[in-house]
Amino acid sequence: MNRIQFQCDYNEGCAPQILQRLVETNLEQNIGYGEDPHCEHARELIRKACEAPQADVHFLVGGTQTNATVISSILRPYQGVIAATTGHIAVHETGAIEHGGHKVLTLPATNGKIQAEQVRQCLAGHYSEDGPEHAVQPAMVYISYPTEYGTLYSKQELTEIHNVCREYQIPLFVDGSRLGYGLASKESDITLPDLAKLADVFYIGGTKQGALFGEAVVITNPALKKDFRYFIKQGGGMLAKGRLLGIQYEVLMQDNLYMTLARHANEQAERIKEALLRKGYKMAVPSPTNQQFFILPNEDLKRLEEDFVLSVWNQPDADHTTVRFCTSWATRKENVDKLINSLTPNPSPVGEGRNK
Amino acid sequence: MNRIQFQCDYNEGCAPQILQRLVETNLEQNIGYGEDPHCEHARELIRKACEAPQADVHFLVGGTQTNATVISSILRPYQGVIAATTGHIAVHETGAIEHGGHKVLTLPATNGKIQAEQVRQCLAGHYSEDGPEHAVQPAMVYISYPTEYGTLYSKQELTEIHNVCREYQIPLFVDGSRLGYGLASKESDITLPDLAKLADVFYIGGTKQGALFGEAVVITNPALKKDFRYFIKQGGGMLAKGRLLGIQYEVLMQDNLYMTLARHANEQAERIKEALLRKGYKMAVPSPTNQQFFILPNEDLKRLEEDFVLSVWNQPDADHTTVRFCTSWATRKENVDKLINSLTPNPSPVGEGRNK
Amino acid sequence: MNRIQFQCDYNEGCAPQILQRLVETNLEQNIGYGEDPHCEHARELIRKACEAPQADVHFLVGGTQTNATVISSILRPYQGVIAATTGHIAVHETGAIEHGGHKVLTLPATNGKIQAEQVRQCLAGHYSEDGPEHAVQPAMVYISYPTEYGTLYSKQELTEIHNVCREYQIPLFVDGSRLGYGLASKESDITLPDLAKLADVFYIGGTKQGALFGEAVVITNPALKKDFRYFIKQGGGMLAKGRLLGIQYEVLMQDNLYMTLARHANEQAERIKEALLRKGYKMAVPSPTNQQFFILPNEDLKRLEEDFVLSVWNQPDADHTTVRFCTSWATRKENVDKLINSLTPNPSPVGEGRNK
Amino acid sequence: MNRIQFQCDYNEGCAPQILQRLVETNLEQNIGYGEDPHCEHARELIRKACEAPQADVHFLVGGTQTNATVISSILRPYQGVIAATTGHIAVHETGAIEHGGHKVLTLPATNGKIQAEQVRQCLAGHYSEDGPEHAVQPAMVYISYPTEYGTLYSKQELTEIHNVCREYQIPLFVDGSRLGYGLASKESDITLPDLAKLADVFYIGGTKQGALFGEAVVITNPALKKDFRYFIKQGGGMLAKGRLLGIQYEVLMQDNLYMTLARHANEQAERIKEALLRKGYKMAVPSPTNQQFFILPNEDLKRLEEDFVLSVWNQPDADHTTVRFCTSWATRKENVDKLINSLTPNPSPVGEGRNK
Repeated sequence: MNRIQFQCDYNEGCAPQILQRLVETNLEQNIGYGEDPHCEHARELIRKACEAPQADVHFLVGGTQTNATVISSILRPYQGVIAATTGHIAVHETGAIEHGGHKVLTLPATNGKIQAEQVRQCLAGHYSEDGPEHAVQPAMVYISYPTEYGTLYSKQELTEIHNVCREYQIPLFVDGSRLGYGLASKESDITLPDLAKLADVFYIGGTKQGALFGEAVVITNPALKKDFRYFIKQGGGMLAKGRLLGIQYEVLMQDNLYMTLARHANEQAERIKEALLRKGYKMAVPSPTNQQFFILPNEDLKRLEEDFVLSVWNQPDADHTTVRFCTSWATRKENVDKLINSLTPNPSPVGEGRNK
Repeated sequence: MNRIQFQCDYNEGCAPQILQRLVETNLEQNIGYGEDPHCEHARELIRKACEAPQADVHFLVGGTQTNATVISSILRPYQGVIAATTGHIAVHETGAIEHGGHKVLTLPATNGKIQAEQVRQCLAGHYSEDGPEHAVQPAMVYISYPTEYGTLYSKQELTEIHNVCREYQIPLFVDGSRLGYGLASKESDITLPDLAKLADVFYIGGTKQGALFGEAVVITNPALKKDFRYFIKQGGGMLAKGRLLGIQYEVLMQDNLYMTLARHANEQAERIKEALLRKGYKMAVPSPTNQQFFILPNEDLKRLEEDFVLSVWNQPDADHTTVRFCTSWATRKENVDKLINSLTPNPSPVGEGRNK
Repeated sequence: MNRIQFQCDYNEGCAPQILQRLVETNLEQNIGYGEDPHCEHARELIRKACEAPQADVHFLVGGTQTNATVISSILRPYQGVIAATTGHIAVHETGAIEHGGHKVLTLPATNGKIQAEQVRQCLAGHYSEDGPEHAVQPAMVYISYPTEYGTLYSKQELTEIHNVCREYQIPLFVDGSRLGYGLASKESDITLPDLAKLADVFYIGGTKQGALFGEAVVITNPALKKDFRYFIKQGGGMLAKGRLLGIQYEVLMQDNLYMTLARHANEQAERIKEALLRKGYKMAVPSPTNQQFFILPNEDLKRLEEDFVLSVWNQPDADHTTVRFCTSWATRKENVDKLINSLTPNPSPVGEGRNK
Repeated sequence: MNRIQFQCDYNEGCAPQILQRLVETNLEQNIGYGEDPHCEHARELIRKACEAPQADVHFLVGGTQTNATVISSILRPYQGVIAATTGHIAVHETGAIEHGGHKVLTLPATNGKIQAEQVRQCLAGHYSEDGPEHAVQPAMVYISYPTEYGTLYSKQELTEIHNVCREYQIPLFVDGSRLGYGLASKESDITLPDLAKLADVFYIGGTKQGALFGEAVVITNPALKKDFRYFIKQGGGMLAKGRLLGIQYEVLMQDNLYMTLARHANEQAERIKEALLRKGYKMAVPSPTNQQFFILPNEDLKRLEEDFVLSVWNQPDADHTTVRFCTSWATRKENVDKLINSLTPNPSPVGEGRNK
């Protein structure tokens, strides 16, 4: 029998509404490369949802591709992108940004987040130096919402980062590969229109949020719009049958489906979190979204792994492992029930004892 | 009412068998990034079809991405790839190869093809020069089967190019984005196992041949296998839900579907070709596959375009236009009937008269 | 005994005035990286000579480095540079431009030159196409003055190319690695101030014109000035002891030395040309500068090579070789005498006979 | 009156013996690009000094260029280079390594040095992960001898790093832009032949050690030799008048001049260090070579700067500045005397008081 997977948020296919629509439209004849009516319509829906009627919207296939394409379109060759040490572009993209010629200038992260003051110091440091041309020029900021640790920037924090970027006239790019899980979180105090105002460019992730694949890039800063389609094409991200992306986003943006799917995932993650805390397990990161990081005694993990697939993050000590429990739009409640029922009280807390 | 599109071979969605299989498997839980059982099974089917049990098979999303990834995996930074001036990598990929740092060393093409002797001269010229390090070192050959003009290399021609590559110890890479249309052509004298022997790496195109998207790279030369997955990931081509590629190729490789779909397209293209010749239109390129290039008087083209969408290729003189008629796995016979019935005898042949 | 070299224009060290000045200044203490008083002074002399008081002037070490740095500073990643098929960046720089990510878009050259109309067609072709984002965007023009074949653009030709560039709003870059030989030619009708007006960026070559090394880049278009020093540094072209470049250009720009040295080379080349024509040898290219290309019967070449080192260019037929005779600021008259005295009447003209 | 510069080790021209030899050889005719007899002879002298008769030796112009060229020649596109966070390639080369497509994988440094165990953990971490292709593959190690802080690896430390590299089959590259200052240090326990055995590739720096410019790359690992000249040319590092490099290294390698010049610099640095310690200033880094890092009260620094130019490193607190005193082959003893005489006892030690 197959184990139940809480390993990531892309274990299943897609929201059934999407597949159904792909079946209905399959024999339509459409022009390629994202210039078909479905893409046009999806763009319109996204602009409305963002309250950004002037925004450019482009559809790409996956996250690494999207990050590399957006960053490549913004930076000149001697410039770098500021990111958290834990940022996806810094650690999980096989150097795609460097392959494009750019350094990722990392700042120490706390629970996946960086703060405006760190960004300011990085920028101020570069420009105060003699001969700044001997170092990479920091020229944009990359953050993720939610972060790779499931955490969220508050509106206040985002605004502060936005303000530093304005001060130094560099753009803010928000990786939204899990954007819905963030916006739908009970702890989020920002909306899609807020994000469209605070970021110069961001994307509405599809792959991890109910689509077969797809990332919708929203460019609100006019200075960043020019010739973006060249970058998509050159980077291998221009899908011949672009309609597939248009159709998926038409469905996701209709009747709030995108947020409904995300809310479901968050609720199931919340159930897992509460159960783990009740059993005395130590939370590694305080995440209000669909990814939960907990520290488990190795023997508990081993027992759980008989029935469930989880992601191992790291080993804080020889006897414990940090584990990620990840839910998605597709997570079934009964599977969460099974997981919760499999938990036993934590007999071996890390460090000074039970979770604090 | 919509015009009927003979514009390209990716105007529709995909073979219905594929969509059906996506629906059936949608809620399966699978590991990501191409390591799931569907991908494994599809790889096995491809190895069998190629009679290449040791080959590595990788699935990517689109053609430009595949070309850039394969070429990047083979060349060192100072090396270039030999291609026809009309090769897809030379003219239709927005410099994706150059973005990866490599020069495309073009040779004049005849009907989309280059010959072994041209390749040999290019290689011999580089190595005989004093100080060859002042020029890009030619280090692989790229050809397309069929070519961008729908034409085919004979087994003899392919073997000769293969032999020159062996002599100079450089790999031969065959772009097979329309591979099926080539192999299924009545004029083809090669098989998939032949290709697997003659090429060091090639791909079995899905996007233009009935899949939603997807290109299956087959690496037969062991020297080219190492760390290929790093290249896919870095190039943005590693689909999170890799299963989608596995499932599509499982369907395409079953019961010879891939070839059946291609044969249908070729037959409809043949009908168009015969009708055009009968009406006295001049063939621009003698293509035995799904793309047909004909020279039309501008007024004839204008009339046809009221009901049909075609691809304009170029303008041989002020009164004529070279047009591509493209069929696909999805082309309906009744639409071809309509096209044929719309043709009128050519009143204004190019140059010395009717087609010769 | 050593053979006399007419092989290239960098066979010797440098103009003795330069070495003397290096000796005099050797123990001065100076700040590095081109910010010392010698560089400042040399920049001022160059701005004056160009009648371009607002120009930025930067010193780099060699030609390939300079070309790669300038082009990298101008193009965005999806853009390419228009050049002659025979342009130095197209054939003799081991793909340095492609290494920076850019395609060299070549146009057929006549005696090393391209014409404004070719450039216009290339630009017009790109922008008229549907979906121009599928091809590299032509975004600057590169020419050499003199060309790689020693030929010169007239002021009229340069102005026409300049005008096309203006029309399409792309910059014109002039490779001046042999600039002096061009400006000092009797057939030249342009001056340094003319060039500064017609080009957006160009360089005054030192390496081939009497310096130990060095190329002085002059940027007249304000849009191209920003952050250029970052590009020099990143490209490895920022010499630690930048003073060496400043001092060399101080000497070259003083008392018209740069032009005096070039004129000497041209005069010696003229003597060689006249002698070869007198003896009935066929001129391959009509060059009015320090490089002379002639077609020699192989046996004549063999005999000459006993005493002289020449550059072999190509083989127009089995019995003849195109040879470059190259003079420089350092060419001694008595060596030219020896060469001329070694010439015998051409017994075996190419094709229809004696030079026409 | 000019202030005396202790700012860096490239404030002056070059060792007079070099200039004299350039004058003597100036009118010799030589072939270009490093293939002349002076280069050949210099290579032979270097091979002998390294006791590495099979080594390949190449001459480049500057340090950033050399680092970028060597690293580019070794890594495949998805691979990165391990370096100290303070390594030159990590912070002072404007992203030249990233421009070549590669990530610099930084490890925390202590006084500029990294340890074998850190390298091992980095390598072990990559290969133990699931799906290592999602991260950059660490594939070479870069260290500097001496480091950017003037410190030295012991033979034991170097051997341990060498051993980890062997274990993981990756090359060790030693940046020797100040190599002589290291080898000539009283605290060094390694020799040039030791280095040639422990490193796979390293360079003997000229620019900072008495040459006008130049870095001599020594490749001892046969696997790294292939086609290196292509990399030099493509990277813009192939000097047309390569003889200039050959001649300089002929002089430096003769009669032990390279070491003599370095020893002089170290002795003057030692005098400065002792004087500063005597006066109660706190040493920031324990350096046994020509760079000395001390923490000065801001008012002391201000006073010193009236007569001397120093390098400001950073500000440990609001009242103190870390300063680099740098000597060279050209530092005059009387200038060191003046500096020492200008020192006053430190009235305001950092932290717990006088240097400890």
